[in-house]
Amino acid sequence: MEWNQKNEPIVPSFNDIIDAHKRIQPYIHRTPIITSKSLNSIAGCNLFFKCENFQKVGAFKARGALNAVLLLEKTKLSNGIATHSSGNHAQAIAYAGKIVGTKTTIIMPSSASIPKISAVRSYGAEIIFCEPTQQSREETLNSFIEKTKAIFIHPYDNFNVIAGQGTVAKELLEDVSNLDFILTPVGGGGLLSGTLLTTKATSPNTKVIGVEPSGADDAYRSIRDNKIYPSINPKTIADGLLTSLSQRTFYIIKNLVEKIITVSEQAIINAMKLLFERAKIVVEPSGAVPFAGVLEYPEIFQSKNIGIIISGGNVDFSKLPF
Amino acid sequence: MEWNQKNEPIVPSFNDIIDAHKRIQPYIHRTPIITSKSLNSIAGCNLFFKCENFQKVGAFKARGALNAVLLLEKTKLSNGIATHSSGNHAQAIAYAGKIVGTKTTIIMPSSASIPKISAVRSYGAEIIFCEPTQQSREETLNSFIEKTKAIFIHPYDNFNVIAGQGTVAKELLEDVSNLDFILTPVGGGGLLSGTLLTTKATSPNTKVIGVEPSGADDAYRSIRDNKIYPSINPKTIADGLLTSLSQRTFYIIKNLVEKIITVSEQAIINAMKLLFERAKIVVEPSGAVPFAGVLEYPEIFQSKNIGIIISGGNVDFSKLPF
Repeated sequence: MEWNQKNEPIVPSFNDIIDAHKRIQPYIHRTPIITSKSLNSIAGCNLFFKCENFQKVGAFKARGALNAVLLLEKTKLSNGIATHSSGNHAQAIAYAGKIVGTKTTIIMPSSASIPKISAVRSYGAEIIFCEPTQQSREETLNSFIEKTKAIFIHPYDNFNVIAGQGTVAKELLEDVSNLDFILTPVGGGGLLSGTLLTTKATSPNTKVIGVEPSGADDAYRSIRDNKIYPSINPKTIADGLLTSLSQRTFYIIKNLVEKIITVSEQAIINAMKLLFERAKIVVEPSGAVPFAGVLEYPEIFQSKNIGIIISGGNVDFSKLPF
Repeated sequence: MEWNQKNEPIVPSFNDIIDAHKRIQPYIHRTPIITSKSLNSIAGCNLFFKCENFQKVGAFKARGALNAVLLLEKTKLSNGIATHSSGNHAQAIAYAGKIVGTKTTIIMPSSASIPKISAVRSYGAEIIFCEPTQQSREETLNSFIEKTKAIFIHPYDNFNVIAGQGTVAKELLEDVSNLDFILTPVGGGGLLSGTLLTTKATSPNTKVIGVEPSGADDAYRSIRDNKIYPSINPKTIADGLLTSLSQRTFYIIKNLVEKIITVSEQAIINAMKLLFERAKIVVEPSGAVPFAGVLEYPEIFQSKNIGIIISGGNVDFSKLPF
């Protein structure tokens, strides 16, 4: 992390996000914004769903990964890139590695699902399996990087990744004006951080709220108590939101967020089912979390215009909770 | 059915379809066309999915029902409208009845699913339950109509309904040029008939193919043998395609269709799963049938530009086949 003379981290400017958008545009979709009268009527407000479930690799993660990888110097790329992930970041880095044509290695837990493994392989990335623990992931990655000098792309504690994620809200705010709120899910906080930077720069009256499962409420507690709590034994169906805030995301979120709200597992499942049944879109549990927030806190959102970022659509249908 | 001096039925002209489109436009969505590189690569051709799963009531049926109901004279509406259906036509008529503000009654089998019953009720229609047989449906409807003089709107043996369904292909051909093929599912043949009328008028080099489950192949046999076979004990997961061709749809289809192809149950399930997993859209089994045709007959479709009408997205998630 780089610091200015006042000892503050130098976070991405909105110009960095504009540049990121230009950089990644050839390789991403400008995803549609969907509205549904029936969901508006159920929720009692005007909802604008920004559908990153239709994004490349099925999630917004393609944006941050591409921006970070495209910014690497050519000479550094010769040793390849690497990360550890069992989820959407794995596919995103595999996709970005294919775009720039570098050797890409993903450390995945041996418990990863077959569709996720084959998705990563379909982009030509190599997989090294490890034990399904955070410790084994990190040790396996570190020893791989020591050996190969590959570059590690962190899923969110990386300002170039965060700038890439900020392009979601940029498109949303270009396409819909007068939003009272924007809601994102919170896992490690990369999407929320990027959304905050864009929104404060271009639509300062729009309040940004992070939504988190009650069973993985480390970000809620971290912001409340002004210290980063690690995410210990999180329990939620929203398997993209199990991680803790990092130095970079904590700094941005604590300074800019309106608030973080938490939702029950039942609300997440209800929200997911409503999106399938009424909007006819496939949304993963983590992607349904912000809509669950609207359903659980009607007193905040009544009659408001609300942008909701549907973060991804990679669903394991053998585990559909309804 | 009205006949001209050559003893041919007077089918809707393309002007009738243009008029239908203007008439129903305030009440329907212009649905998006979705493309997917990953599905193109699996299928070996260029696919353009016309997403009527995003249509009002979750299916193209809203179009035909609206056109037919909006064309009824005000004085005739005073006795109300009625139909029998356990599926998307029930919701479509309920929706159309709400738009014109007339009493609407749907005869539904007592076996209809709760989501379908509540969807019909949400539009303010009344439901009369009958035994789950074709005979009971017709008898119940006939006795209701005799008593009330309500107007029966047939789901497809009605040229105003067919003209309404023709607006799907009109939008598709306005949005995508140079289609080699358009594929629709075939149940009673209303969507296929409307698609044929539009396509022959505006893009005569585009071949229209109807796709039918092997377990409900009455349309395939009817066209082959030039006589209408009733659909007896059809067995397919595609529950929107159980009905037989009618006089009107048989006449249009036999004169204009390129061919009808049949697909296996496994191909329908595979197609449905691919649309969920790759395109991230919710498609009902009947709506996945045309894409199943592309997967089963690669020799016909290799490298071609293909418009695929996704007819609907009303899925019973408790019965998801994957």
